[in-house]
Amino acid sequence: MSTPQTLTVELGERSYPIHVGAGLLSRPDLIRPYLRGDRLLVVTNTVVAPLYLDRLLSTLHGLKVDSVVLPDGEAHKTLDTCQRVYDRLLDKRFDRKCTLIALGGGVIGDLTGFVAATYQRGVDFIQVPTTLLAQVDSSVGGKTGVNHPLGKNMIGAFHQPRCVLADTDTLHTLPDREIKAGLAEIIKYGLIRDSDFLQWLRDSMPELLNLEREALTRAILVSCRIKAEVVAADEREGGLRAILNLGHTFGHAIETATGYGVWLHGEAVGAGMLMAAWMSRDLGWLSDSEYDLAENILHGAGLPARPPAGISPNRFMELMAVDKKAEAGRLRLILLQGLGNAVVSDAFDPASLERTLDHFTGGH
Amino acid sequence: MSTPQTLTVELGERSYPIHVGAGLLSRPDLIRPYLRGDRLLVVTNTVVAPLYLDRLLSTLHGLKVDSVVLPDGEAHKTLDTCQRVYDRLLDKRFDRKCTLIALGGGVIGDLTGFVAATYQRGVDFIQVPTTLLAQVDSSVGGKTGVNHPLGKNMIGAFHQPRCVLADTDTLHTLPDREIKAGLAEIIKYGLIRDSDFLQWLRDSMPELLNLEREALTRAILVSCRIKAEVVAADEREGGLRAILNLGHTFGHAIETATGYGVWLHGEAVGAGMLMAAWMSRDLGWLSDSEYDLAENILHGAGLPARPPAGISPNRFMELMAVDKKAEAGRLRLILLQGLGNAVVSDAFDPASLERTLDHFTGGH
Repeated sequence: MSTPQTLTVELGERSYPIHVGAGLLSRPDLIRPYLRGDRLLVVTNTVVAPLYLDRLLSTLHGLKVDSVVLPDGEAHKTLDTCQRVYDRLLDKRFDRKCTLIALGGGVIGDLTGFVAATYQRGVDFIQVPTTLLAQVDSSVGGKTGVNHPLGKNMIGAFHQPRCVLADTDTLHTLPDREIKAGLAEIIKYGLIRDSDFLQWLRDSMPELLNLEREALTRAILVSCRIKAEVVAADEREGGLRAILNLGHTFGHAIETATGYGVWLHGEAVGAGMLMAAWMSRDLGWLSDSEYDLAENILHGAGLPARPPAGISPNRFMELMAVDKKAEAGRLRLILLQGLGNAVVSDAFDPASLERTLDHFTGGH
Repeated sequence: MSTPQTLTVELGERSYPIHVGAGLLSRPDLIRPYLRGDRLLVVTNTVVAPLYLDRLLSTLHGLKVDSVVLPDGEAHKTLDTCQRVYDRLLDKRFDRKCTLIALGGGVIGDLTGFVAATYQRGVDFIQVPTTLLAQVDSSVGGKTGVNHPLGKNMIGAFHQPRCVLADTDTLHTLPDREIKAGLAEIIKYGLIRDSDFLQWLRDSMPELLNLEREALTRAILVSCRIKAEVVAADEREGGLRAILNLGHTFGHAIETATGYGVWLHGEAVGAGMLMAAWMSRDLGWLSDSEYDLAENILHGAGLPARPPAGISPNRFMELMAVDKKAEAGRLRLILLQGLGNAVVSDAFDPASLERTLDHFTGGH
């Protein structure tokens, strides 16, 4: 049994550890210290349950554990699905000292976290993210929530987990596209805050794509550390935290234009980051060699080099303007002033945005 | 225009004022300082809207105000009803800087607060409670939420309002029974924390029942002050806050046995407090004269002197044991060790509880 590496997210009395490593699903010692009572509800989905639910349940042997298996997919990240979890909790008379365990990807994590935030006005929860994206994204920040037909994540709450177990073994059953989508998020942390990490990512891309445990563990830990630093400085989303959305405004436009789920979120963000980098170079904020490095890494991770064909610049503008970051009518974008230094700006030359959209959509 | 009296609920950066007085619905100066943006959604119901919505809307003249009118009653305090408010917010593209205004009783306040707590992970809200119960209960404590078919307030969050406007004029359209139910809650604050207030309540009961502005203002302010003191010492419900549930365990049993809505919550709590006082005397914790004063005040407020006929002691026990305060199998009750001094106890002689139930149900 290898020793997991641990990052503590410092949030005063709500501080919690993120354990990263192989075989963590079989480690009751990493879960038990965080239980206030002995009643647990594992929330998972129809894809993850056959793979990992039994292992987790046997790890929790001796505790009073129920589980609920939800349908898989973003389409089920709704209040209606929450209702099924509330039903189970009440039907089985879970009290306020219970703990929910989210076993799955981002949808399961966000939804379970939201139910935990709102069941009897807040109970504990533990995250066991089983996708690379969830391991580096949902593990930090306390964002929980579900979708509304008129917008993603429109209903939610801030609620911190008691601990996070990121078991790199679970990535071996993850489809290749989802590994790459997770790498997009990891690359993002380098782009916004840490150029050394970015260099390391370029050099380690083969090992990462090969799912080598040591490289994965480091990539996940550094990503979580960077996200935690940004979030700690801005827990409730005043300003700095917005840099975590690098590539997201372009990316959301892609996701909306193609219909959610056609492109993975990470794929859309990957293309969006390239667009943000291109625009940053166009503005003179990135050098050619910096842009080339960014492009090189995104390409090396197998991420799309441009948006799908058929989205006109005008359509892009339209979709970006309704993005929730477009407060009070001004479009704010996350751009790069050097690698490892993202900024939030609404003070860019609009012509540069037009050139960027033309470049990436022009021939298509 | 009279000057409202104001209590500030001290909660650090989430501190907020409770303004109490006549005519406050017509005072834009009490609302505008608490708006972060100029978009507001007034949430109210079909009973309150015809009485007070136009007045509030004209007070908010010049701001971008929408309103949503929900069906009246506890039966509609559900996630489904929340969905209607989310729908409106998203349909009208409300952003994170919007403010929700809850215009109505406890159901509207709890539901609107929960939507505010969860819309885009939290937006501002202002309480304009129009019932006596809501003015003294929902104004303080930050509890928001909705019901689940298997339990009241099972889905919720803690979320503090930016300010509260308790307009005593709105009480003139309130049914007599609801005034009395509100008085039960006011008497509760005296019983649990302030015997001087209790004496004043006995002496002022005619003025209160007559809805005289000065007496009402004082009763509301003192009630809110006491609740704020208790809550400030225990914001997230560790221990002390439980004393606010004096009479509630007995009361919930009455409400469940009769079916929710047959007795008003305040009526059930009124009878429940009398039962708790009787049991406290039986335990030797209250003197005869103290018990008589409590009974006298509850009687003077026109509250029921006993539970409805037909609930056997066994049925009472059954209903009390499933109460959410019955953690880990031990029944905890709020009892009085002297007037103005409530305690939470699971260390009482069970025979005393039996005698209490026999006394109050025996002949019926």
